[in-house]
Amino acid sequence: MRRLDETASGVFVICPTPFTEAGALDEASADRMTDAYLAAGASGLTLLGVMGEAPKLDQEEALRFVRRVLRRVDGRVPVVVGVSAPGFATMRALARGAAEAGAAAVMIAPPAGLRGDDAVVSYVAQAAEACGDIPFVLQDFPLPTGVAISAEMVRRMAAADPRLVMLKAEDWPGLDKITALRRMEAEGRMRRISILSGNGGLFLPFELERGCDGVMTGYAFPEMLVRVRALLAAGRREAAHDLFDAHLPLVRYEHQPGLGLAVRKWVLQRRGIIGSAALRAPAPRLTPETIAEVEWLLARVERKVAALGAG
Amino acid sequence: MRRLDETASGVFVICPTPFTEAGALDEASADRMTDAYLAAGASGLTLLGVMGEAPKLDQEEALRFVRRVLRRVDGRVPVVVGVSAPGFATMRALARGAAEAGAAAVMIAPPAGLRGDDAVVSYVAQAAEACGDIPFVLQDFPLPTGVAISAEMVRRMAAADPRLVMLKAEDWPGLDKITALRRMEAEGRMRRISILSGNGGLFLPFELERGCDGVMTGYAFPEMLVRVRALLAAGRREAAHDLFDAHLPLVRYEHQPGLGLAVRKWVLQRRGIIGSAALRAPAPRLTPETIAEVEWLLARVERKVAALGAG
Amino acid sequence: MRRLDETASGVFVICPTPFTEAGALDEASADRMTDAYLAAGASGLTLLGVMGEAPKLDQEEALRFVRRVLRRVDGRVPVVVGVSAPGFATMRALARGAAEAGAAAVMIAPPAGLRGDDAVVSYVAQAAEACGDIPFVLQDFPLPTGVAISAEMVRRMAAADPRLVMLKAEDWPGLDKITALRRMEAEGRMRRISILSGNGGLFLPFELERGCDGVMTGYAFPEMLVRVRALLAAGRREAAHDLFDAHLPLVRYEHQPGLGLAVRKWVLQRRGIIGSAALRAPAPRLTPETIAEVEWLLARVERKVAALGAG
Amino acid sequence: MRRLDETASGVFVICPTPFTEAGALDEASADRMTDAYLAAGASGLTLLGVMGEAPKLDQEEALRFVRRVLRRVDGRVPVVVGVSAPGFATMRALARGAAEAGAAAVMIAPPAGLRGDDAVVSYVAQAAEACGDIPFVLQDFPLPTGVAISAEMVRRMAAADPRLVMLKAEDWPGLDKITALRRMEAEGRMRRISILSGNGGLFLPFELERGCDGVMTGYAFPEMLVRVRALLAAGRREAAHDLFDAHLPLVRYEHQPGLGLAVRKWVLQRRGIIGSAALRAPAPRLTPETIAEVEWLLARVERKVAALGAG
Repeated sequence: MRRLDETASGVFVICPTPFTEAGALDEASADRMTDAYLAAGASGLTLLGVMGEAPKLDQEEALRFVRRVLRRVDGRVPVVVGVSAPGFATMRALARGAAEAGAAAVMIAPPAGLRGDDAVVSYVAQAAEACGDIPFVLQDFPLPTGVAISAEMVRRMAAADPRLVMLKAEDWPGLDKITALRRMEAEGRMRRISILSGNGGLFLPFELERGCDGVMTGYAFPEMLVRVRALLAAGRREAAHDLFDAHLPLVRYEHQPGLGLAVRKWVLQRRGIIGSAALRAPAPRLTPETIAEVEWLLARVERKVAALGAG
Repeated sequence: MRRLDETASGVFVICPTPFTEAGALDEASADRMTDAYLAAGASGLTLLGVMGEAPKLDQEEALRFVRRVLRRVDGRVPVVVGVSAPGFATMRALARGAAEAGAAAVMIAPPAGLRGDDAVVSYVAQAAEACGDIPFVLQDFPLPTGVAISAEMVRRMAAADPRLVMLKAEDWPGLDKITALRRMEAEGRMRRISILSGNGGLFLPFELERGCDGVMTGYAFPEMLVRVRALLAAGRREAAHDLFDAHLPLVRYEHQPGLGLAVRKWVLQRRGIIGSAALRAPAPRLTPETIAEVEWLLARVERKVAALGAG
Repeated sequence: MRRLDETASGVFVICPTPFTEAGALDEASADRMTDAYLAAGASGLTLLGVMGEAPKLDQEEALRFVRRVLRRVDGRVPVVVGVSAPGFATMRALARGAAEAGAAAVMIAPPAGLRGDDAVVSYVAQAAEACGDIPFVLQDFPLPTGVAISAEMVRRMAAADPRLVMLKAEDWPGLDKITALRRMEAEGRMRRISILSGNGGLFLPFELERGCDGVMTGYAFPEMLVRVRALLAAGRREAAHDLFDAHLPLVRYEHQPGLGLAVRKWVLQRRGIIGSAALRAPAPRLTPETIAEVEWLLARVERKVAALGAG
Repeated sequence: MRRLDETASGVFVICPTPFTEAGALDEASADRMTDAYLAAGASGLTLLGVMGEAPKLDQEEALRFVRRVLRRVDGRVPVVVGVSAPGFATMRALARGAAEAGAAAVMIAPPAGLRGDDAVVSYVAQAAEACGDIPFVLQDFPLPTGVAISAEMVRRMAAADPRLVMLKAEDWPGLDKITALRRMEAEGRMRRISILSGNGGLFLPFELERGCDGVMTGYAFPEMLVRVRALLAAGRREAAHDLFDAHLPLVRYEHQPGLGLAVRKWVLQRRGIIGSAALRAPAPRLTPETIAEVEWLLARVERKVAALGAG
């Protein structure tokens, strides 16, 4: 089985969990979404993240969804599975199930309420232990949790556990932390890990320029993320920023906490990628005003991107 | 099947979840503990609360423990099952399992992160809906969650949902809120609900005097709680306070966040009520200094209570 | 003296507090900045907000700065003074000083740590009382404080105190709350107040379209904010969004918590509006990488805006 | 001028700030309180702590109160002045004023919102720098701030700055941290500092036994704290615990967040130590039920202490 390692790069698409209008897991949409993301150029997929409504699934559903996507992917790209849970027993069960289904790695975020650097480092060590013999992605996302992870803490955790192969870097502000980590690696003070940015892609071109190997986010047009990365890799910096900036108004709109996922699912439904924009409760509802704004943004993005030409 | 209602009263003992030294669910101890608590005069039991390490169990273990205790209780007292979970799907599964096993009610605590009164009220309504056709206990415990529940909010929730039959009142300070609720009932502005205090029993005699119907806590000597309540009911106020105050140094020590549960399990093991004081990770460890202090307190409690005489 | 009322509208520029490299209050820059903002079309100025490093000034400095700017403004536009302070005595002293110097209103933000709607409403009532006979702006900015203010709470506070004349609306997401407030006014359930948006202007055109009377923010190019508002008012929606979107990459960059103010001061220094980009401790430092990114963004904004033509 | 150093010990009484019924600073009561605390055996006084309503004073009042008490103390015991403030400019002004008036040290608590060990350590270093050439007490009180300070962080701060002479240890639980610090000192890994416990004295005898040099709290009967310490020093452990436990029901009652200070001032007024129990807004109000409970507790404490004999 293919496992994630520190050379991982590219666009890992955070998958929403598709539900039917009635709220059931929509496995047909899971297949369609998987196909769409691979066609868009995804280098990997991430399931059951914060934006995957993971806490709203029970254990059986979570594993059913993981298995369904993994079967569809069929080894073409690595799949990361979020296993954050309020206790290690649940985390262990999820991680084991994901590993058996063929996941390439699990993703761990230290939960709200941890106080002090040592508590965070120790939590991650215990969580990785609970997950067993599978690589893990450390998620650094302090906005919803209040848990700060410094570059030095990442270094400590990477030194302590070879299973830590990737950082999902979504601190805000976070650009200088990426530079600090890459500098520590360059100076031989830290082993190399893969770093993918997050935060809805809001700072994407700069994050790649600072040293990220890619991005892990669920923006509803992953093909843009793929193309921006390719343009930067080809040395076409202005073109990369032009394309990104054409999408930025929608990226910003989709990045609103809570509401953003509802917007994203609505766009994905409109694009035919999932069958329904339904979220499970608790969830915000899109007002007519919001939908009109999203329509306005979609039309503008399309026009602006068209104006850029084939690139 | 016996269901909890607003007339519930007495001492509901918060049960720890017993583990073996190796960390497995210790079902034999679950039986022994059940017997001990009923022998101590418990009017009810509460499983899978914060002090029951609920988040450290996976779903299967949680329901296995619930079934085991319910079988042992065999209908003699009502059993409340905590179902707080990060999402409604898990909550629904737990509540259904608990109801099928014969639980008298579930307990719901609004989670950290809710902002604004309406968000809290709406969350509780949705959670109760997810739990289905079973009464529920609302837990008001802002210390770990930061979620405030005013007397007025309790009134709103009680008016909106007849399934709300009991409040576990453990705000700190919380005495005036109990008085405010009872006053609203007396003035006909709110239907009556059962109110049990919590907070480790730290303010017990006053809480009962303010109008609580009992207490729901896990102090390692539940027979004291039962006796204090009986003394107050018999009009023997000084004797009630004397007995409570004899235990207060240990009550206070057991009330330390995080560490308290480790102390409590250690005392329960020493009393022969559970087989091992083991906690699942993450958990604090009792230092030799702590153990010596607990021993000192136990000896003093015993001596002071003996000096009070048969009462 | 001119006082703020519920008809206030336009762009209120949040002023940074200029310091010399040595950290002293830079009064000459305060004059220059005042002139620049009025020249840019500001309808008002706001001093000593979160982005004005207010807590880093002692009381004497704060009032000296307020007096200096008010003297320079000389009644041409209304000036709002932030008076948030850890206690009412300090708030009272600041408000009185600001009023005597000619401020049009004070601004109040409920502090972190308030729990429950009633606590927030009661705090604001007491704060307004402490400020005395001067109108006030209510700041709804939950990101740094965790204090949620619902539309209903705004309604209650507006009903209770005629001094509340303006809401600074910077919840995130916050567009639907603006719509909700305007709907309550339209339905006669709430008296009209002025609403200016904030949040660095990140959602500006939509906020104006939802019913905001303007924006109160400190983006380093306030002339853009003025122009976007004029274009929308003239019914030129596409042109308004085009201009805003040309700036959005920099708006987003300046909107980073903590770091953003350092970026903003750097840009203002580069534009010659203030003499030094210095911040008082604690403050982040701009790395060479960050400065290079800001330079890149400035060049792009200039080019994109030029390409839009005179508009 | 006498400065605090790492040999400081004994009972440092946290002074409330006395107000008249009309809310003005009550300087006559400040004198009377000073006399009463010195007569009770205080080894030091602490002004403008959390329990001193410091944020409710403006700068002029704060310094007036400090000067008044220092004049009355007239060098008989060291006086510590809390200077926690939202910014370093205010902190500097307060610290300078306190030093000029003859304070022996200032007290610094890292504020809510700091994230990560390095941020805390760096904040304290900057705060100490702002306070200038005066020793400081580090307050470790995470309950209201959420800021964790590990034993290792205390070691780092003590190593970095010789002005750090005392720790006010009021983490909860906190006993093992005291032991950890004393162990580091014994093993030569850390220089000695004075440690006084806090937390209302709730764990007093154990804190002294763990290695505290005394206690810094404002319990309304400081003579009890002095006596418990003397009994322990004389090797009379049972007598020390007996005396402490006789007060514990009231200690616990006074330790309720927010409400506790109102109770304390009420008791101090009843004892004739201050002229009025008035607090400045925002403040809780004592209900008749609360007052009756405090009366009950006072009567019981008196009786129980009398029963212990002269000791």
